Amino acid sequence: MTKKHNIILQPSGSRGQVEEGQSIRFAARELGVDIESICAENGTCGKCMVLIEEGRFEKYNMNSKRENVSPVTPVEAAYFARRPNLLKSKGWEVGQVRLSCQCKIRGDVLINVPEESRGNKQIVRKSASEREIEIKPSIRKYLVMMTPPNLERPIADWERLAKGLETSMGLVRAGEENLPRWSDFTVDYACLRTMSATMREAKWKVTVSVWQDKEVVQVQAGYHEDSYGAAVDIGSTTVALYLCNLRTGEILAAESEMNPQIVYGEDVMSRIQYTIEHPDGLEKLHKAIIATLNKLLKQAVKTANARVSEAGDSSESASEDSAIQRIGVEDILEMVLVGNSTMHHLLLNLYPKDLGLAPFVPVIHKSVDVKARELGLHISPSGNIHVLPTIASFVGADTSGMIIAEEPHKQDENWLLIDIGTNAELILGNRKRLLCTSTPTGPALEGAHVEYGMRAAPGAMERIEIDEKTLEPRYKVIGVDGWNTDYDEFKGKVKGICGSAIIDGVAELFRAGIVDSRGKFKTGLESARIRQGASGWEYVIAWADETSIGRDIPMTQQDVRQIQLAKAALFVAARTLLKRFGLESPDKIILAGGFGSYIDKEKAMLIGLIPDCELDKVYAVGNAAGDGARIALLNVEKRNEIGSVTRRVERFELPTDPEFQNQFMLATSFPHMSEPFPHIAHLIPNRVMDAMAKKFVNK
Amino acid sequence: MTKKHNIILQPSGSRGQVEEGQSIRFAARELGVDIESICAENGTCGKCMVLIEEGRFEKYNMNSKRENVSPVTPVEAAYFARRPNLLKSKGWEVGQVRLSCQCKIRGDVLINVPEESRGNKQIVRKSASEREIEIKPSIRKYLVMMTPPNLERPIADWERLAKGLETSMGLVRAGEENLPRWSDFTVDYACLRTMSATMREAKWKVTVSVWQDKEVVQVQAGYHEDSYGAAVDIGSTTVALYLCNLRTGEILAAESEMNPQIVYGEDVMSRIQYTIEHPDGLEKLHKAIIATLNKLLKQAVKTANARVSEAGDSSESASEDSAIQRIGVEDILEMVLVGNSTMHHLLLNLYPKDLGLAPFVPVIHKSVDVKARELGLHISPSGNIHVLPTIASFVGADTSGMIIAEEPHKQDENWLLIDIGTNAELILGNRKRLLCTSTPTGPALEGAHVEYGMRAAPGAMERIEIDEKTLEPRYKVIGVDGWNTDYDEFKGKVKGICGSAIIDGVAELFRAGIVDSRGKFKTGLESARIRQGASGWEYVIAWADETSIGRDIPMTQQDVRQIQLAKAALFVAARTLLKRFGLESPDKIILAGGFGSYIDKEKAMLIGLIPDCELDKVYAVGNAAGDGARIALLNVEKRNEIGSVTRRVERFELPTDPEFQNQFMLATSFPHMSEPFPHIAHLIPNRVMDAMAKKFVNK
Repeated sequence: MTKKHNIILQPSGSRGQVEEGQSIRFAARELGVDIESICAENGTCGKCMVLIEEGRFEKYNMNSKRENVSPVTPVEAAYFARRPNLLKSKGWEVGQVRLSCQCKIRGDVLINVPEESRGNKQIVRKSASEREIEIKPSIRKYLVMMTPPNLERPIADWERLAKGLETSMGLVRAGEENLPRWSDFTVDYACLRTMSATMREAKWKVTVSVWQDKEVVQVQAGYHEDSYGAAVDIGSTTVALYLCNLRTGEILAAESEMNPQIVYGEDVMSRIQYTIEHPDGLEKLHKAIIATLNKLLKQAVKTANARVSEAGDSSESASEDSAIQRIGVEDILEMVLVGNSTMHHLLLNLYPKDLGLAPFVPVIHKSVDVKARELGLHISPSGNIHVLPTIASFVGADTSGMIIAEEPHKQDENWLLIDIGTNAELILGNRKRLLCTSTPTGPALEGAHVEYGMRAAPGAMERIEIDEKTLEPRYKVIGVDGWNTDYDEFKGKVKGICGSAIIDGVAELFRAGIVDSRGKFKTGLESARIRQGASGWEYVIAWADETSIGRDIPMTQQDVRQIQLAKAALFVAARTLLKRFGLESPDKIILAGGFGSYIDKEKAMLIGLIPDCELDKVYAVGNAAGDGARIALLNVEKRNEIGSVTRRVERFELPTDPEFQNQFMLATSFPHMSEPFPHIAHLIPNRVMDAMAKKFVNK
Repeated sequence: MTKKHNIILQPSGSRGQVEEGQSIRFAARELGVDIESICAENGTCGKCMVLIEEGRFEKYNMNSKRENVSPVTPVEAAYFARRPNLLKSKGWEVGQVRLSCQCKIRGDVLINVPEESRGNKQIVRKSASEREIEIKPSIRKYLVMMTPPNLERPIADWERLAKGLETSMGLVRAGEENLPRWSDFTVDYACLRTMSATMREAKWKVTVSVWQDKEVVQVQAGYHEDSYGAAVDIGSTTVALYLCNLRTGEILAAESEMNPQIVYGEDVMSRIQYTIEHPDGLEKLHKAIIATLNKLLKQAVKTANARVSEAGDSSESASEDSAIQRIGVEDILEMVLVGNSTMHHLLLNLYPKDLGLAPFVPVIHKSVDVKARELGLHISPSGNIHVLPTIASFVGADTSGMIIAEEPHKQDENWLLIDIGTNAELILGNRKRLLCTSTPTGPALEGAHVEYGMRAAPGAMERIEIDEKTLEPRYKVIGVDGWNTDYDEFKGKVKGICGSAIIDGVAELFRAGIVDSRGKFKTGLESARIRQGASGWEYVIAWADETSIGRDIPMTQQDVRQIQLAKAALFVAARTLLKRFGLESPDKIILAGGFGSYIDKEKAMLIGLIPDCELDKVYAVGNAAGDGARIALLNVEKRNEIGSVTRRVERFELPTDPEFQNQFMLATSFPHMSEPFPHIAHLIPNRVMDAMAKKFVNK
């Protein structure tokens, strides 16, 4: 029987008995600790460096140190000789640092696996709950070196490759290479077609990319370290794509484009309608988004290559083994996409009719995996397209992305997640139970259908304040520091009002007493800014000479009305979820979407856009759906996780009964009559408080 | 705790304890006995009929019979009331015969599952070893009836279907329908795209076809019993397609066409050459075979529908529940194909270059599964194309088919399988060990490159005999009974000589002493039939006035030479295999291929085409490769089986050293100098025996 030795791996603390003569890397794998290696254990990539901390550690005999492993091999010596700076910077000496694929176990030993050698690296993501994301992509790469075929062993190319792959992955132990074993790997058909030529051209030294530990999807000549993937958030209005390095998690490029489907209808309902009314409607909408995605992919690769060229000119950080390589779209091996249910259906060329008609049913909830070539997406033809699951007709794959990014299903506290757009999706709950619903909020919150509304861009007002004594405003403009009143001559010429300033404006109009609790402009106030405009009462925030458009910029009665409807819808949806859950208020509110990132939380609460909650428990997390897509791209386990979470989310449509309509009308008032509001009470003018008190007394 | 009862199922004898109140069908499944059902256990298909033989069988109390099952339900009563003839013909009475999906267990019971209700049916196949083939297709059909979605339960179409499918398959027990359970089924992307419309059009009653128990590949409106598949043998010259009913195993149509690739090269080497020399060569050859397969599929469906129309007019055998349905190519859900390695590569659009250049390496051995739409094959786009594994560069998927059909790997005896064509593949061995090789035999055996050679067709000579005294011949012609000499005036006008007659002719020329052991024409014999022709000596078999071509039909020195080369190649290949195996002769010889079916085994042995063996141990099995494809189509388990067999077949190329060349030259003689030939010794003329004896003495 072979002799066994005790080994301990730090920092994980994994320990166990392993056989004499095994490599440290093999032994570590047996104990569940993955050590990197991409050179097929040839001692050339250096990814598997470990530190021998103690030999015979039971006795702590420092003198016997390193006797319990095999001596440094010439391969290792050569590797380290070429890297004096590395050793110096780390303070390591050869013998203490070893290549774990080369170093064999001869006795009890304590080993330290440094961060850079660990199989599963982590990146830190900023979010409501700051946390680390483990990098476990669906694609892993292996260097495979094969003996060329000869007349004695004319085994087929695929079987030769599969065997070599198993050796590289450590599935075949030394000495067992010739035992009959047949591969369980499969090969993608498009990859099979081109593989043989590459193997020969590369003189039987190739890098093999394996998807989900089972399917070979790419064979490249020579040695390659990095794999690439793209995460995409398809919004009704904007499509955002992130090109990522699947090994490091790094974002190499972030590109966005308008969703071209907008010419067929501004919101999802009108696009669904278009596919119903036009026989080729679905085909057109599908092709439009595919074309845009292909354009974004091309742009992203260009951006990434431009960065690489710059880095190549100035830095020495390039690995000595791999020259910096320009990438092509065909090197992108996976895409993960999110989008609302309609975007999901149009992407997958699924007829969205029943999404828009009662009882509002998607074609599929479950995540979809489909080959890039089936959709005409120009990444590797063998690449996989993964679309996150939908939850309901109006709670789509974007919400799945938000859940992945924010993880409400792992909390003890009760979190309320709101993704605000033309439609708002809401998730409420904790690790035990999650509820979801959605509500249309209209385009006002995104600056559309507001007289001088615009997207958040240079020239847009982003903050507004109104002095309650003088009724004079001040504002901030995107791209300019400070308030307009801070300058003698304000340089920021204003063009319009973006979403966050619209919320500010409405809140300030209310706070300053210019509009009442019901949202109506009061007449008879002493200010030139309050006047009858073309479509009713309005309040001028910027005079024509402060603007770049040469016209006064007011907020109108109509604008206030739009916001009232939007906030009432959102508020009633949140309130209904809370009621179903048996809660007064959530422990935390998370606002996702671009809009949520810029609003003044206090003002939003003042006008009743979100339920009352401690202000420092309200977080804005930006594009959580896109973040979720990126996390699912980088960590394949998240896909199973979201699959099981979406299955147990309780979804329901908001009721349409008269009682509910009442609630809705009540919720249009400022702040909102039906609720206590301890956290913003100090902001509410005394006259409003008095009026409300009077009203309640009268009841 | 629920009460348990003993049940026994006949004829399998399976027994066990099952819970009170379970249906017989469910209980049988628990005991490993599959009972048919395709109506989702609604009591309408009648596939699951069983006979209640005894209640309380431990006591054999005949009076208590049938008390231990639930009473006949109205559904059953209605079903049987509509089928008085069935009951009469079988001699069954209602109550004794029950629908096992309706009948519940209330006590101990003995049940007989009649042949027609058993889950896995069998068909008998004629072959060298007559045996039954179990029908276990990769496709199974289930009727799924769903509750339409409503606002309370707007679950997506796919999840609704998957849930219904699980209920139909008995994966969900009664009472557990609403427990959360998520499907492991996947759905093919093309099927996903069309499924929703079908479900609605069918008012939520559909038939679902499941591939390999995991992937949904077809959703049809309403109730359908039958699935269809095609088995194909792609020969270098001829492509044969069998359209099969996957439920019954019946062949609905058999169609064949010339392989259109023949215009790019007659043999495999010249087609490989064509792909090397022409940049678009592979694409052309690939498209040619795909087009022919699509043509054959269309023809086969037409033939099958014509048969159905006839049957529909005259017979009453149609099931009462399912109207006879015309099928379309889109109803074909799977194809299984075989062919030599070159045909395999051209079918799959794989570059065959390395098949034809040393060291002769295929792209892949393993079987390939690919969606029909990826190859442009016009069956269901979601249908699967399964190509059997290749064994070596010149031992292709056709040999895999032959192994499936003949099963040498299950024998205690040593079998020699020879598939004879332009190339011959040979397999030798038993359940423990299998060897394979291949050898080019040239086109002579198929009637090509022989002066008056032709394919087996009306007008071709199929048998030749020569009287050794008079040196006069007689012959048989395909399509005419008896010998030409049996008639005063022979009606059969001759056109040429097919493969079997060529073997006869050469053997008879030798036996009659017209050619010598070395295959040379003797001069000076007294016969007008032996003469100097345009290209050397020849023997006239038919005079011009006996033919439809108005010319004498001779066999020439050149023809004899062709056969000598072919038979020497085949003989040496067989001999080498036997030697490697350590055998003198095989226990059985199996000749596959159209050619093998028609030759006179004795004559073939006389000229040394096949090794000496007892004549009644030589079998001709026809198109075994095509049979193998059909078996693999009908029984999915055969695919795994051939996968593991091909992995352990030892393959080798025939050596090219001078010793081997010597062997080859020696083997060109008649019968063959290097071997004993006990089973044909009586046929060899005394003068030959004498000469041979003299020769051996001289040595």
